[in-house]
Amino acid sequence: MRRPTIKDVAERAEVSLKTVSRVINDEPSVQARTRERVRQAIAELGYQPDPSARSLRSAQPYALGLVYDNPNPYYVIAVQNGVLSVCRETGYGLQIHPCDSSSPNLANELIELVQHSRLAGLVLAPPMSERNELVTELIAHGVNLVRIVSAAADPQDGSACVYVDDRDAAYDITEHLIQLGHSRIGFLWGGKSHGSSWERYKGYEDALREYGIPLDAELVVEGDYSFDDGFRGARRLLALPDRPTAIFGSNDEIAAGVLAAAKSSGMNVPYDLSIAGFEDSPFSKQSWPALTTAKQATQDIARHAAHRLLQEIREHAPKASPNEGFSPELVVRGSTAPPRPKA
Amino acid sequence: MRRPTIKDVAERAEVSLKTVSRVINDEPSVQARTRERVRQAIAELGYQPDPSARSLRSAQPYALGLVYDNPNPYYVIAVQNGVLSVCRETGYGLQIHPCDSSSPNLANELIELVQHSRLAGLVLAPPMSERNELVTELIAHGVNLVRIVSAAADPQDGSACVYVDDRDAAYDITEHLIQLGHSRIGFLWGGKSHGSSWERYKGYEDALREYGIPLDAELVVEGDYSFDDGFRGARRLLALPDRPTAIFGSNDEIAAGVLAAAKSSGMNVPYDLSIAGFEDSPFSKQSWPALTTAKQATQDIARHAAHRLLQEIREHAPKASPNEGFSPELVVRGSTAPPRPKA
Repeated sequence: MRRPTIKDVAERAEVSLKTVSRVINDEPSVQARTRERVRQAIAELGYQPDPSARSLRSAQPYALGLVYDNPNPYYVIAVQNGVLSVCRETGYGLQIHPCDSSSPNLANELIELVQHSRLAGLVLAPPMSERNELVTELIAHGVNLVRIVSAAADPQDGSACVYVDDRDAAYDITEHLIQLGHSRIGFLWGGKSHGSSWERYKGYEDALREYGIPLDAELVVEGDYSFDDGFRGARRLLALPDRPTAIFGSNDEIAAGVLAAAKSSGMNVPYDLSIAGFEDSPFSKQSWPALTTAKQATQDIARHAAHRLLQEIREHAPKASPNEGFSPELVVRGSTAPPRPKA
Repeated sequence: MRRPTIKDVAERAEVSLKTVSRVINDEPSVQARTRERVRQAIAELGYQPDPSARSLRSAQPYALGLVYDNPNPYYVIAVQNGVLSVCRETGYGLQIHPCDSSSPNLANELIELVQHSRLAGLVLAPPMSERNELVTELIAHGVNLVRIVSAAADPQDGSACVYVDDRDAAYDITEHLIQLGHSRIGFLWGGKSHGSSWERYKGYEDALREYGIPLDAELVVEGDYSFDDGFRGARRLLALPDRPTAIFGSNDEIAAGVLAAAKSSGMNVPYDLSIAGFEDSPFSKQSWPALTTAKQATQDIARHAAHRLLQEIREHAPKASPNEGFSPELVVRGSTAPPRPKA
């Protein structure tokens, strides 16, 4: 069977060879619609760009690296798939490198990874992306990188990043619960090494303040981004004499733990307890009832991060290339409802 | 900060340098207990073997490749983590390559992947591992590989593999339902391109035959290894005039779909309907009620596959190196119970 060539792609997309080459090399000088047509032709033909045919600058390294430390399979797979979609279009491989974000050796570990595996650059997921001394040391060693961080605005510290406005989305979730009539709203933290945990907590706090609801420290429980911590935290909140009528878990895994805790106590969700998560994971759509959450376009975010990394690698981008921001959106489903009237 | 050396590892593990080197190079001539001690020292020190210090034969390629096509994040992450644990001990990187298992171009795609990314070898997950013409072509092109396949015994076709006895475990699940008193037992298929789907169906069929229960084609529904197909299949079975009292979903994702379908019809699981899955995914422990399933040690299976691949790469193994088999085990949880007595 004959392998499709770049010429086949050009014919199918009805563009010049040069245009196909520009799209493959991810150069900015192609119109969005044309780029889409070329990508579609590549996908339909199953065309595989030959990495050795790329520009000399990028001919040596064959792969990008993805660095993460996250217990949530849905998040990790979405990030992988986003970066992979860009790797496919540009002929790069993808090496994955889950790591221990608290390791004091991490900078050396990543510098060696890049050198030994000859990686063209790294995508740093949170929380590694939020350890400034780590990022600084990697850049000082000449490592190309892009960071995915939680922030309301571009940190403008000169490094390439994609930023996600978790605070705003957490505000929206809390406001949704308040507008349903809840005032006793529990909050379960994600891991404190993640910037997103702090941002989500601030969004919760801001909304309570805005609506004049006093913050009750008893309703706030620390923990990690895990099902088990959601279960444990919810059990603690539901055992309070004046228990909350709604619980906001900092991600969908936590919210899944809250749902299990509520059901195991014989509660009817949402009538006895409203539950909200954050992430819009497949679980949030599949649970019964489905979870109110914030839709975080993780795959798109990772895709943009990979594109931003390629700009860094190729130095095609102007000096102050803009960093992109994403805002997760409130998605209301069956797990939230007005509280029962007090008897 | 000083990087730990192989000498530090030897001192901490109280063994010779040669022994550490043998463990790093994955040579078989080290006692299990000693190997464990060395691995622990490596982990505690955060020691990173230098790939260039390995034997000349393996000095060139820096990474293994993992090839999969599976919609289930839990499965994919478990396979990745199993292969990665071996990569870490031996200094290899891991490139991931999700692909379209039905692509006619797949052999070329994988041969190019190996060449361009200079991969030392590939771990093939199902269903690619079960496409014999693909495996043959890759081997003919000198690609080192190991296959993870569903089979009751070593296929003994000369290729390296790890085999999983799905049929036996599916028999056990069906027998468990029969012994609870069920005789109307629905079965929801996984994707037919997966050998495991066929093996699990045969286990179901074998158990029914063994217990003298006639097979009712109406109770068997085709589909894929997905939540949505589980939901759809269950809705169809629950709409039958003489509906099943138990449903066996071919994996936990399917069973999760069955659970959602049952709850959305207001049924009380397990009293109105028993549900069993297959895989022992985190979801199966976290759902309410938790799912009866078969515990499939996916991470261990992948770990053994990676070890087997390294034997192939290093040609240290005797010609007829044994392939290892795994048997998933029945895990009984709250989602299965005796059927309600007929009114």
